[in-house]
Amino acid sequence: MRFFSDNAAAVCPPVLQALVDANTLDTAYDGDAWSQRLDGAFSDLFGTQVRALWVPTGTAANCLALTALCPPHGGIVCHRDAHINCDEGGAPEFYTHGAKLLAATGPGAKLTPDAIRAVIDPIRHDVHQVQPHAISITNATEYGLAYTPDEVAAIGDLAKARKLGLHMDGARFANAMAHCGCHPGDVTWRAGVDALSFGFVKNGGMSAEALVFFRPDLADVTLYRRKRAGLLFSKGRYLAAQLLAMVENDVWLANARAANAGARLLAEAAGDRLVHPAQANEVFLKANPQEAEALRALGFDFYDWAEGEIRLVTSWDQAEEAIRPLAQAIAAL
Amino acid sequence: MRFFSDNAAAVCPPVLQALVDANTLDTAYDGDAWSQRLDGAFSDLFGTQVRALWVPTGTAANCLALTALCPPHGGIVCHRDAHINCDEGGAPEFYTHGAKLLAATGPGAKLTPDAIRAVIDPIRHDVHQVQPHAISITNATEYGLAYTPDEVAAIGDLAKARKLGLHMDGARFANAMAHCGCHPGDVTWRAGVDALSFGFVKNGGMSAEALVFFRPDLADVTLYRRKRAGLLFSKGRYLAAQLLAMVENDVWLANARAANAGARLLAEAAGDRLVHPAQANEVFLKANPQEAEALRALGFDFYDWAEGEIRLVTSWDQAEEAIRPLAQAIAAL
Amino acid sequence: MRFFSDNAAAVCPPVLQALVDANTLDTAYDGDAWSQRLDGAFSDLFGTQVRALWVPTGTAANCLALTALCPPHGGIVCHRDAHINCDEGGAPEFYTHGAKLLAATGPGAKLTPDAIRAVIDPIRHDVHQVQPHAISITNATEYGLAYTPDEVAAIGDLAKARKLGLHMDGARFANAMAHCGCHPGDVTWRAGVDALSFGFVKNGGMSAEALVFFRPDLADVTLYRRKRAGLLFSKGRYLAAQLLAMVENDVWLANARAANAGARLLAEAAGDRLVHPAQANEVFLKANPQEAEALRALGFDFYDWAEGEIRLVTSWDQAEEAIRPLAQAIAAL
Amino acid sequence: MRFFSDNAAAVCPPVLQALVDANTLDTAYDGDAWSQRLDGAFSDLFGTQVRALWVPTGTAANCLALTALCPPHGGIVCHRDAHINCDEGGAPEFYTHGAKLLAATGPGAKLTPDAIRAVIDPIRHDVHQVQPHAISITNATEYGLAYTPDEVAAIGDLAKARKLGLHMDGARFANAMAHCGCHPGDVTWRAGVDALSFGFVKNGGMSAEALVFFRPDLADVTLYRRKRAGLLFSKGRYLAAQLLAMVENDVWLANARAANAGARLLAEAAGDRLVHPAQANEVFLKANPQEAEALRALGFDFYDWAEGEIRLVTSWDQAEEAIRPLAQAIAAL
Repeated sequence: MRFFSDNAAAVCPPVLQALVDANTLDTAYDGDAWSQRLDGAFSDLFGTQVRALWVPTGTAANCLALTALCPPHGGIVCHRDAHINCDEGGAPEFYTHGAKLLAATGPGAKLTPDAIRAVIDPIRHDVHQVQPHAISITNATEYGLAYTPDEVAAIGDLAKARKLGLHMDGARFANAMAHCGCHPGDVTWRAGVDALSFGFVKNGGMSAEALVFFRPDLADVTLYRRKRAGLLFSKGRYLAAQLLAMVENDVWLANARAANAGARLLAEAAGDRLVHPAQANEVFLKANPQEAEALRALGFDFYDWAEGEIRLVTSWDQAEEAIRPLAQAIAAL
Repeated sequence: MRFFSDNAAAVCPPVLQALVDANTLDTAYDGDAWSQRLDGAFSDLFGTQVRALWVPTGTAANCLALTALCPPHGGIVCHRDAHINCDEGGAPEFYTHGAKLLAATGPGAKLTPDAIRAVIDPIRHDVHQVQPHAISITNATEYGLAYTPDEVAAIGDLAKARKLGLHMDGARFANAMAHCGCHPGDVTWRAGVDALSFGFVKNGGMSAEALVFFRPDLADVTLYRRKRAGLLFSKGRYLAAQLLAMVENDVWLANARAANAGARLLAEAAGDRLVHPAQANEVFLKANPQEAEALRALGFDFYDWAEGEIRLVTSWDQAEEAIRPLAQAIAAL
Repeated sequence: MRFFSDNAAAVCPPVLQALVDANTLDTAYDGDAWSQRLDGAFSDLFGTQVRALWVPTGTAANCLALTALCPPHGGIVCHRDAHINCDEGGAPEFYTHGAKLLAATGPGAKLTPDAIRAVIDPIRHDVHQVQPHAISITNATEYGLAYTPDEVAAIGDLAKARKLGLHMDGARFANAMAHCGCHPGDVTWRAGVDALSFGFVKNGGMSAEALVFFRPDLADVTLYRRKRAGLLFSKGRYLAAQLLAMVENDVWLANARAANAGARLLAEAAGDRLVHPAQANEVFLKANPQEAEALRALGFDFYDWAEGEIRLVTSWDQAEEAIRPLAQAIAAL
Repeated sequence: MRFFSDNAAAVCPPVLQALVDANTLDTAYDGDAWSQRLDGAFSDLFGTQVRALWVPTGTAANCLALTALCPPHGGIVCHRDAHINCDEGGAPEFYTHGAKLLAATGPGAKLTPDAIRAVIDPIRHDVHQVQPHAISITNATEYGLAYTPDEVAAIGDLAKARKLGLHMDGARFANAMAHCGCHPGDVTWRAGVDALSFGFVKNGGMSAEALVFFRPDLADVTLYRRKRAGLLFSKGRYLAAQLLAMVENDVWLANARAANAGARLLAEAAGDRLVHPAQANEVFLKANPQEAEALRALGFDFYDWAEGEIRLVTSWDQAEEAIRPLAQAIAAL
């Protein structure tokens, strides 16, 4: 059984059905009926007026958000292990025309005001040094930790005080919300977030993520940039339909809860082996090469992570009974 | 009935079925079984070893191809009415980091060696002027004309002599091939084309185009650029599956023939009103505002084009009987 | 004698003396006493509060100005023969991160509101087409014509109405002013110009041009871009000193008058051969290859221009008696 | 007396004289007699065939070199304290179109093969991570340390083995050579360096640095990039003349020796306060705020560096007797 990545999972039935339902003649690009409903659906979800754009990948969502918040000559504070810094092949630098990622540190890939200040306070206010213009945090983090509303708000306050934009990479936002239990507005706009990459693909979608602007004025210029990046689909309705299928019936939350439950099962079995609390759908645990090999010999697939560490990712379509054998094998190590 | 754009048409059944069939667990990105079959399927189609990459839009395909053929400080010769020059929101400049499009002219948006020489011959060979590095032609052209193999080969010879790359924007390549009747290799690699944007979305696909490199060495670096542009889908199998469904059973050709047949019907009815021969699925015809209004009053939707001119686009899913009423209305004007 | 280019001329004595005078210890970059006086000196000259930055080349001045007026996804209207379009090796595209130059036409490389409207009016207001954000005019034009205040103001009014920035490439601004006789403010800020590339190198300077912002708020971000472009000289005082030497004693105007006088002498001799009125220091005249050869045989050097046309450029250091022989040779053709 | 920066120093007499001598009519851009002699002069100096281009700033030299060695999607390993990473306002990202600087660590801002491997070995060979394409080292380093030929060669061997380009930022290359005593070829091309930013401005020049390519094929495309960056001076002869004046009579070495001697004087007085060995013309020493204040009260100006640390920079024009009072004051602290 595969625990490589939630990217490997199948597409959930409501999304597939939505594609079939959308398979009719309509206006090209984003002029169709589905795309036109996005702003409303996401405004309802977040409890405030937002602008929501479909984009095909999380990288694209992140990069368009960052470009809206940082000029080419500016800098963006992020965790050194952030996806934008490590795993997007230089896409943020491409989209922003060379803005500089300023790497902060902290346990579990989580940022704090102190960690951010340690990066930006030493920067001289002159033209020789790249000035910070934005902060990007990931929720859930690359190590599966969810931010509390207070944690985000503390960063939001710092961002506001220093006139920095605040972006949230929510590739696993749904998993973070399923853990957090709070209202989606509490960890986003109420806490000072300007733009959210709201991920659906890892959570049962096929090819659509939402870029949500809590400062609606940022959306207009982004429409030009989305086109300029080759991301304006001729048949955008098939992306919009996916998002609506996920959001309008809380499918996003149900799927995330299912994935999180699987991870919890594994985490409980892992006990002291656990490297980070398993708050979302990723479980990092200590396992030496022999132990990893033993698990693989039982038919479980996963990635090695740091030395003596493995990563297990659960997904929306893995039933508890399917995961239990791995939990037992871990407990038995 | 809508004749706005083939982008507005529905997705054809084999493509939709392919999505359902692909809806299983597999490797993320382009490591899946479907993506791995693309090189083979397109090599078979073209009768030579090619590399074929899925990309979500024609703009992305065009821009990645151009970036493979032209450095940031170079120039790309194209027709002034080319899609890359007029309708991609500056995407070629974005992807190439500012390469310059050098506009040539010619009837029907078709380029010829003479038209290209008229642009490149006056350029001084010094650092003050942007030097040409590539040529881009559109087949079928923006006005629905198909290139013959000889026409492309003449441009290919010039490209080779001047050490210029040659790109073909094939957003409607299928329609051109349906008209031309030749082997797909005849108007591409045998005629000197280095890279082809092979369009499927306008022809019944949902969200996948193929970027085909006839110089396979160009593909490796393009994989980095595709990722860097935010175009590497987490679940790439759903794009690959679309392409395979279109190519492996000649669905692409059947769909294009259907669309072309509809256009021919309209063109025959248009008679002297025809602005360009209708070789693909676009019909440009003279109609004054009153005449256009009259057609619209009958329930036909389409775009005005130049002054006193309208554009009608047919698509794979429009049956002859559905088009005949418009043909009759045109004939009756 | 050389009539190739005013770039080939020597540096005038006041500039050279200024370098010697500045050769003392002072603060690095632009913190020195000379650089600090630029805003004041140019504000006095133009009769309004401006910000003035030294830059080393006209290309750099033009490109920083354009970047201040146009985002990467925007377009800049200029004459098709404009230096920024033809002779800057793609520098505008580099600095602006790929903004698109939108070429207008008109006799003598001069723009008019009508010529500009012919370019921008057909542009659809959608994300598929690059939207205009700025206009760039050259004064004196590439063919040596000077704009009147009214001509610039008409363009300025259009720019304002359409919310477009207005840049003036003044590589030969001094020559234009010497012809025009008006106040420097009349053809710039009073006529709606936002930024001026004020050229000194062709007019007797060594390596410093002034980038003058009539909208002072545009200067701050430009300081970052100047550094980022590798243009912030360690010893900026030697650039500032050149500009002050030229401006503070009207050396710029005296030099330009001398160069213009030489051109007038040649223009009068040319009579019907004249292709454009010689309002600045460039003379374009009809001469077939045999005639050109005859002039060269007499020891005069110059560039061929269009077919059957030659270009003669005079400079600040060419005395009337030195030019007269060429004038006589032209008259004798 | 000022010990802020060697950028604040005056221009040395041979350079000023060279400007006066070059003040005659000649060909524009780099077609003049002086520019034409650069390749020869630097080939003689380095004992191998090189291409040498004038550029106005060290930032420009560095960035053009890096752009020649690394594509937009690549990475460049440098020390985290490197000038290109900290003090060039994002210029490397601008010139390279967003290449990523990969920061290594090590005492004294010096890189070693181990430090480089610690950065590049963990990078996965896939498209998700930015792949290294080049290494950049600074000689003398940002903390005034000179590399030995063996140290550079060890890095050069690694670069070759991993197919990485090797750039040397030689803003204070002359000071490093004055310390090292070896042949200039020994720490550059014989040790695997592909491109050198050879600094002259800090060493008594006015506005010209040399970009030296030991792989001459890299120069041709760089000429286009130099123009495209707005760096092709109309009157390039005044830059070339500066370089020739510095190189052809070993002025560069004499000036550097003078500056280094001053630094040695201060370093000897500093004793245990010394933070790094003073091998070039920079002295970093421990001094608490009271001590720093005491020195300033005596009329010495300098920058605070890290906490409890100050930086003193000597220059070519500071005579020993002028520096001795500061040495005595330091010794007396």
